[in-house]
Amino acid sequence: MLAENSIKVMGSEERQVSIGRLCIGGKAPLAVIAGPCAVENEQMLRETARQVTQAGAQMIRGGAFKPRSSPYSFQGLGLPGLKILHRIGQEMRVPVVTEVLDSGDVDMVAEYADVLQVGARNMQNFALLRKLGTIDKPVILKRGLAATIEEWLLAAEYIMVGGNEKVILCERGIRTHEHWTRNTLDLSAVAVVKNRSNLPIIVDPSHATGHTHLVAPMARAAVAAGADGLMIEVHPCPEKAMSDGQQSLTPNQFQKLMTELSRVAAAVGRCDI
Amino acid sequence: MLAENSIKVMGSEERQVSIGRLCIGGKAPLAVIAGPCAVENEQMLRETARQVTQAGAQMIRGGAFKPRSSPYSFQGLGLPGLKILHRIGQEMRVPVVTEVLDSGDVDMVAEYADVLQVGARNMQNFALLRKLGTIDKPVILKRGLAATIEEWLLAAEYIMVGGNEKVILCERGIRTHEHWTRNTLDLSAVAVVKNRSNLPIIVDPSHATGHTHLVAPMARAAVAAGADGLMIEVHPCPEKAMSDGQQSLTPNQFQKLMTELSRVAAAVGRCDI
Amino acid sequence: MLAENSIKVMGSEERQVSIGRLCIGGKAPLAVIAGPCAVENEQMLRETARQVTQAGAQMIRGGAFKPRSSPYSFQGLGLPGLKILHRIGQEMRVPVVTEVLDSGDVDMVAEYADVLQVGARNMQNFALLRKLGTIDKPVILKRGLAATIEEWLLAAEYIMVGGNEKVILCERGIRTHEHWTRNTLDLSAVAVVKNRSNLPIIVDPSHATGHTHLVAPMARAAVAAGADGLMIEVHPCPEKAMSDGQQSLTPNQFQKLMTELSRVAAAVGRCDI
Amino acid sequence: MLAENSIKVMGSEERQVSIGRLCIGGKAPLAVIAGPCAVENEQMLRETARQVTQAGAQMIRGGAFKPRSSPYSFQGLGLPGLKILHRIGQEMRVPVVTEVLDSGDVDMVAEYADVLQVGARNMQNFALLRKLGTIDKPVILKRGLAATIEEWLLAAEYIMVGGNEKVILCERGIRTHEHWTRNTLDLSAVAVVKNRSNLPIIVDPSHATGHTHLVAPMARAAVAAGADGLMIEVHPCPEKAMSDGQQSLTPNQFQKLMTELSRVAAAVGRCDI
Repeated sequence: MLAENSIKVMGSEERQVSIGRLCIGGKAPLAVIAGPCAVENEQMLRETARQVTQAGAQMIRGGAFKPRSSPYSFQGLGLPGLKILHRIGQEMRVPVVTEVLDSGDVDMVAEYADVLQVGARNMQNFALLRKLGTIDKPVILKRGLAATIEEWLLAAEYIMVGGNEKVILCERGIRTHEHWTRNTLDLSAVAVVKNRSNLPIIVDPSHATGHTHLVAPMARAAVAAGADGLMIEVHPCPEKAMSDGQQSLTPNQFQKLMTELSRVAAAVGRCDI
Repeated sequence: MLAENSIKVMGSEERQVSIGRLCIGGKAPLAVIAGPCAVENEQMLRETARQVTQAGAQMIRGGAFKPRSSPYSFQGLGLPGLKILHRIGQEMRVPVVTEVLDSGDVDMVAEYADVLQVGARNMQNFALLRKLGTIDKPVILKRGLAATIEEWLLAAEYIMVGGNEKVILCERGIRTHEHWTRNTLDLSAVAVVKNRSNLPIIVDPSHATGHTHLVAPMARAAVAAGADGLMIEVHPCPEKAMSDGQQSLTPNQFQKLMTELSRVAAAVGRCDI
Repeated sequence: MLAENSIKVMGSEERQVSIGRLCIGGKAPLAVIAGPCAVENEQMLRETARQVTQAGAQMIRGGAFKPRSSPYSFQGLGLPGLKILHRIGQEMRVPVVTEVLDSGDVDMVAEYADVLQVGARNMQNFALLRKLGTIDKPVILKRGLAATIEEWLLAAEYIMVGGNEKVILCERGIRTHEHWTRNTLDLSAVAVVKNRSNLPIIVDPSHATGHTHLVAPMARAAVAAGADGLMIEVHPCPEKAMSDGQQSLTPNQFQKLMTELSRVAAAVGRCDI
Repeated sequence: MLAENSIKVMGSEERQVSIGRLCIGGKAPLAVIAGPCAVENEQMLRETARQVTQAGAQMIRGGAFKPRSSPYSFQGLGLPGLKILHRIGQEMRVPVVTEVLDSGDVDMVAEYADVLQVGARNMQNFALLRKLGTIDKPVILKRGLAATIEEWLLAAEYIMVGGNEKVILCERGIRTHEHWTRNTLDLSAVAVVKNRSNLPIIVDPSHATGHTHLVAPMARAAVAAGADGLMIEVHPCPEKAMSDGQQSLTPNQFQKLMTELSRVAAAVGRCDI
C-alpha cells in the first residue's frame, strides 16, 4: 500500500523534529519525556517535574484528557489540568507533552502544550489526524493496539499530507495473547521504522509492560534497538496514583534508570543524554 | 471492570432498538441491512437499494465518509454522498445507515441518516461516543479490531451514559494471525454479548471475511448463533467498486442468501424475516 | 506455499472419510462425536456413552492421554483408560475417538481406538504426523492455537503423503486477545477449508469457547457454516469432572442440542442426522 | 496455575547451566550460539564454525532434523547431518546445539549433540519434554508461537520434574498480526522470566525477525534487556542457504555484531563476552 506517492514518510533523508531547543531523531541525543500518567494537581506535577528534569528528562508529560475504557473511571482534569501543565512547563522551561482526544480540542490543546500526543486508540481517528496536519506543533503518534507498522506509517502520512511534517512515532506495545504484560512491546518496530521510513521513533515502556519492574529493562532495550527517545511514567507516589500507578517509576527509580540509559546510549554510539 | 454501576448495558431486560417501524433485538425478526461499501453515485445506489429491498433488506447502508488506511485512497463523497443516501432512503421509504467519523460531524450526519454507525477504528473515540450519547438516533457500534468484548460493552456505555440508549453492537471480525481471511469473525461474541449484556447485536460478515464466497456461510452461521441482524455489502458490479469490491455480493447473490437466511432463522426459532 | 505438488489436500473431488458404517464429509449426514474430556472410570464412560448415543451421537470420545499445561495436573488414565474406551465402544457398537500424543504411542493407541486424534499442541509434531501416515485408521487433526489455515492443510499433507488419506480437520479455536472465551472459534475456517481443500472438517465448540452456555450457539453456527460434524464434550456431572468441567454439557443439554442441530442441518440442506 | 508445587522453575536461587567449561545464566558472560539454520554439508559447516568461533561464538548450532511447514520442503540431512555437526564440534572443541523433533530420537541426538533444542512447534510436545527430563544434557526450550510465559515455564517444569534441571529458555518471537516481521520478538519476556523464574534465558533474533537487517538491533536490545545469551543464524552465503537465508548474517556481519554486543554487555554490567 505504501508506494511512490507516500513520499513524506518514506523520503530518504532522516528527519529530525525540533521542539524548542531540543531535537529528536537522526543523530540527536536520546530524548527522554517523563511525568505522571495524569495531571492530578499542581503540586504533584511541579514536584515530579522538578525531580525528573534534575535527573535529565528534557520534556514533561502529563494527561489532562484521559481516554479510559470505562466512562466511570477518572477522565482527567480537562482544561484546568492543561493549564497546570502549561504553567509548570513555563516555570521549568521545558516543553510539555499531552494527549488530545478529538479534532474539536486540537486548537485548545495546542494553545497550552508544546507537543500533542495521539493515543493508541485514536491512531486511525482520521479527522483528528487531519486536523493535526494543519497546526504547527510536533505530534507524537502512538501505534494502535492492533495496528501494523504499515498502517501506522500511513496514519503519520495523514498528518503530514496536511502540511505538518513534525511527526514522531511512539511504539507502546501491541495486544497479544500474553497476559503477564499489559501489552507486548514490539521493539523490532523500532528497527523496521528506521528501515522503512524517515521518521523519528520513541518508545513508551510504561504502557507497554504495565509493571514497574519491567520498565527499566525495556527502556534499556529500546535504546539498544536504536530508539530516538523514551516516554516514561514517573509518579511521586505510585501507589496513590489516580491512574496507572502500577507501571509508574518513583523519581528515585527514574534517576537510577537515567544513569543506566546513558551507558547504553553511549554503547550504541548515540551521543550522551 | 464492568460492575454494578455499569447498569445500562447490563440490566436484565433485553433491549430492543426501534428504527421507524422496524425493531432490532429481543424477539424481533432478523434485521438485514444491505448496500454498497461507499455511495459512489445516485444511480448505483438507487439500483442497489431497489434490488436489496425487493430481496428483503429492511435498511440501506452506504458510506459517505470512508475511513481508509491511506490518505491517498478514495475517501468517500462526503456531504453530497450523505444527501444521495438520504434521498434514496426517502424514495424507498427505508431507513438508511451511514458511518460518522468525528464528533464534529455528528449533527450533520444525524440530519441525513436514520442510524449512525461507529466504525471499528473509532470504537474507543470517546469524544465521538459521548457526542452520540446526546442525539436521539440509533447508533451501530462496531467492535474494534483488537477490542475485548468487555471494552466494547464499555464503549457502548459511553454512549448510553449520555442518555442515548439506542445502541446496537456489530461484530465485524478481530485481527489475528490468519491471513486467508481479512479478519477473524468472532461469532462467539454474539453469544457472549447475549449473556453479558442486554444489547442487540448484529454481524457484518463482509468486512470480517473480506471475500465474497465466505459471506453467505458466515451470514448463515451468525443467524444460527443468535445474531439479531446482519449488515451485508452488496454492489451491482463488485469488480468495479471503488472500495471493498472483493467482499461485495451481487444483488443476485444477495437474493439467494436471503432465502437461505430465512430458513436458518426459522430453524433457530426466530420469526421469519 | 501450497502449490501444485500439494495435490492430496487440494485435489478437486471432495473427500469422504469412512469410519465403519459411518461417513464424514461431502454429502454425508452431520457426524456428532460426544463424550467426556477424559475417561475417568468405566462406569461414567458407559453411562455417558449410553446417553449420548441415545441422543444421536454416532461416535464416542474420551481422552486416555491428556496433554495438560502443567505436569502436576491430571494426565489421564493412560493404557487402562484406552482399554475402557475400547470396551465401551464394543459394547455400544460405536466407533471411539481418542488423542495420541507421541509417535511412539501410535501403534498402541491404534490397537484400541477407531479414530486417532492429534491435538492442537501437536499440529506440527511432524514425527507424530508422519507416523500416522503409515497406519490405516482415520485421523482427526485439530488446528494449532496459532496455526494459519495454510499450515494446517500442510500438516494434513504430512499425514497423507505417507499413504493415509483418511484425514478429518477439526477447528477448535485460535488464541487471541479475547479473554471471555477460552479461545476464539474461527468458523470462517470451515468455509475456507471447503474452498481451498477437499478435506472434511468438523468443529469442537467445547474447547473453543470453554463455557457450557456458549457450546450450543456455536454448535448451531458451525452447522450453518457448513461443518461436516461436531465434537462435543458431555459429562454426566460436569461440576465433578477431572478436567474441563466448565465447558461440558450434561446429557440432557446434549439431547436438547441434538434436536436443535437437526433443524439447522435441515435448513442448510444437510441430510438429517 | 504456577503455584507452590512448581518449585523447580520458581525457586529463589538463580540457576546456571553448565555446558562443558561454559556457563549460561546468573552472572556468567553472555553466551553466543551461532551457525547455519541447517547443516548442509561438512565443508560449509566447518567454514562457518571457524569464522563464528573466531568472532567469539562459544557454541555452534546447526539443524539436522528440520521442522518444516510443508512435507515437500528440505527436511534436513538427518543422522548424517548430526554426525557432521558432532565432528565439527570435536575439531573446534566447542559444544554443538541441535534440534530434536521426537521423543524417539532423543537418545540418538543426545549421542552427538552437547545441547538439545526443542523448537517452538514442540514446546508442548509433552512426550518429548518428559523424555528430555531423563537425559543428562542441557536442553534449550524455545517458546511456542502462541504460548504464554506461564505455559512456557510449565513446559520447562515437564523436563525438570523428570530430573534434568539443565533447562535454558529461548525467546524466539510470538505470532501476531504484524507482517513486516516474521514473528514479534517479545523482549519483555526476558525480564518477566527473570522475575518469575530462576531459569537462564537466551534470545533468537534471527527466527524472531526473519530479516537480516533486523538481527543486529534486536540482538543488542536483547542483551540490554538482560538476556543471558543469543542464538544467531550465520551462513557463509545466505542467498544460497537451503533454508532461512533471508534471516542469516554473513560471517562478517556476525563479527561486527559481536563487537557491538560486547559494548552493550559491558554497559549493562554483564562481564564481557
